[in-house]
Amino acid sequence: MKVYIIGLGLIGGSLALDIKKAYPEAVLYGKDANQVHVEEALRLGIVGEQGNIEDVKQADWVIVAVPVDAMADLLPEVLNHIGENTIVIDAGSTKAGICKAVENHPRRRNFIATHPIAGTEFSGPSAAIEGLFNGKTNIICEVEKTAFKLQEKALKLFGKLGMRIRYMDPVSHDTHIAYVSHLSHISSFMLGKTVIEKEKDERDIFDMAGSGFASTVRLAKSSPVTWASIFKENKTNVSQALQQYIANLQIFQQLLDNDDYDGMFNELESTNRIKHILDGIQ
Amino acid sequence: MKVYIIGLGLIGGSLALDIKKAYPEAVLYGKDANQVHVEEALRLGIVGEQGNIEDVKQADWVIVAVPVDAMADLLPEVLNHIGENTIVIDAGSTKAGICKAVENHPRRRNFIATHPIAGTEFSGPSAAIEGLFNGKTNIICEVEKTAFKLQEKALKLFGKLGMRIRYMDPVSHDTHIAYVSHLSHISSFMLGKTVIEKEKDERDIFDMAGSGFASTVRLAKSSPVTWASIFKENKTNVSQALQQYIANLQIFQQLLDNDDYDGMFNELESTNRIKHILDGIQ
Repeated sequence: MKVYIIGLGLIGGSLALDIKKAYPEAVLYGKDANQVHVEEALRLGIVGEQGNIEDVKQADWVIVAVPVDAMADLLPEVLNHIGENTIVIDAGSTKAGICKAVENHPRRRNFIATHPIAGTEFSGPSAAIEGLFNGKTNIICEVEKTAFKLQEKALKLFGKLGMRIRYMDPVSHDTHIAYVSHLSHISSFMLGKTVIEKEKDERDIFDMAGSGFASTVRLAKSSPVTWASIFKENKTNVSQALQQYIANLQIFQQLLDNDDYDGMFNELESTNRIKHILDGIQ
Repeated sequence: MKVYIIGLGLIGGSLALDIKKAYPEAVLYGKDANQVHVEEALRLGIVGEQGNIEDVKQADWVIVAVPVDAMADLLPEVLNHIGENTIVIDAGSTKAGICKAVENHPRRRNFIATHPIAGTEFSGPSAAIEGLFNGKTNIICEVEKTAFKLQEKALKLFGKLGMRIRYMDPVSHDTHIAYVSHLSHISSFMLGKTVIEKEKDERDIFDMAGSGFASTVRLAKSSPVTWASIFKENKTNVSQALQQYIANLQIFQQLLDNDDYDGMFNELESTNRIKHILDGIQ
């Protein structure tokens, strides 16, 4: 079994580790726009050999986990080179643009559009961890456009990695994910920025910040390459979510400035039911 | 050793558990505005007996951990009733108003104003956990206004609980804490609100939300009583922090709407150094 991993960061690297564990006979080839990452992935044993797009004809699997704004050019090129039964999977956090980019490709049926919802705030090959996808949701878009036999194989792979499957159309995916994932990242990055701007002396932050701040600002450690690319690709939805977030913050500030403490209390209390929603999230 | 805990929530309850562990001979008395909490705390063994303010004359320690907007009335009343050597400690998340409320009290030297920076998103006596304060920062304000011998005793207690001590004036405390703690809570609550408003069907949230969302929105589970009270007490600082946060979000939205991806990238990258700041936070 030959597996090509294109993009050897947190997601591509973690997928490589899990695939190697699930299929010990697999030979993994790695490619990355950053040659330092390729060498790091080889050194860490994430992949066994360096790969080239021209060679994916012999691949059983090609996993594409590059920044989403690079997918639209890269995926059709990958599909140009694959063999009859190669399965190409992307792991992008946006789906509409990606599905659009390959919709008329003659090899569209070899492609399966997925968003494995898993990650950490770290990046690069050294961030790859085994078991990252266990128990996590994998959203598959436009499943009907993938050849049935290849779907079956892919589902088996996802099952071995411990993922739960959800099907969704790419436009709905991008709308919802703007709220439950992309917006969180902006809120966290801008929280980090606001605090850093205020606190020139970092010792003060360090000493006063507790676990609450650490948790809320955690995502601000994430890769700017990955995230600028996601915001770009999902611009309209992200801007709308951000607009609503800003409006809610402004309403809250108004209540505070007007000494409307009952109003503030009601805002907080009605949001408390996020408890029950979050109970189901790992 | 007699210890009165007034306010049997997460903080008061956790302090009671740690004190009992550090001083097995201690007898703990509990009081709470909510009688259900008193009974719960008795049932859970957090305190051994119900207490009354009138009885604090015999107390070695009185720990006041009620919502901060109730402190200004309660603390002077507690000080009215204490004995010669009773030490009164508050655990409020704001300090200026509290210090002001007792500044001219004849028993000011029996009081030590503290902010133990520790907590979880849960509340009430059942949220109390042992070891919550271990390794955490305890900010002491206006230490010079507390009798030296009582300071010594209090430092010994905090040491047994594993806390690191930092001294700060109450006005600086309230300014900085607005950024590193209070703002995080508003950002998280409003993130939760924005997502709930959008996602009427909670199954969608549940299935698509990952650990990133869970982490960023965690604080939105916090007690509305505690937090509405904190925002009220620290109104000016919180409003200013919120203003700057909103301004930063608006700048980001502008960059997004103007397709200024380099600008977005730079915003994200320059905030990435929060990594090094956070490295020191548990």
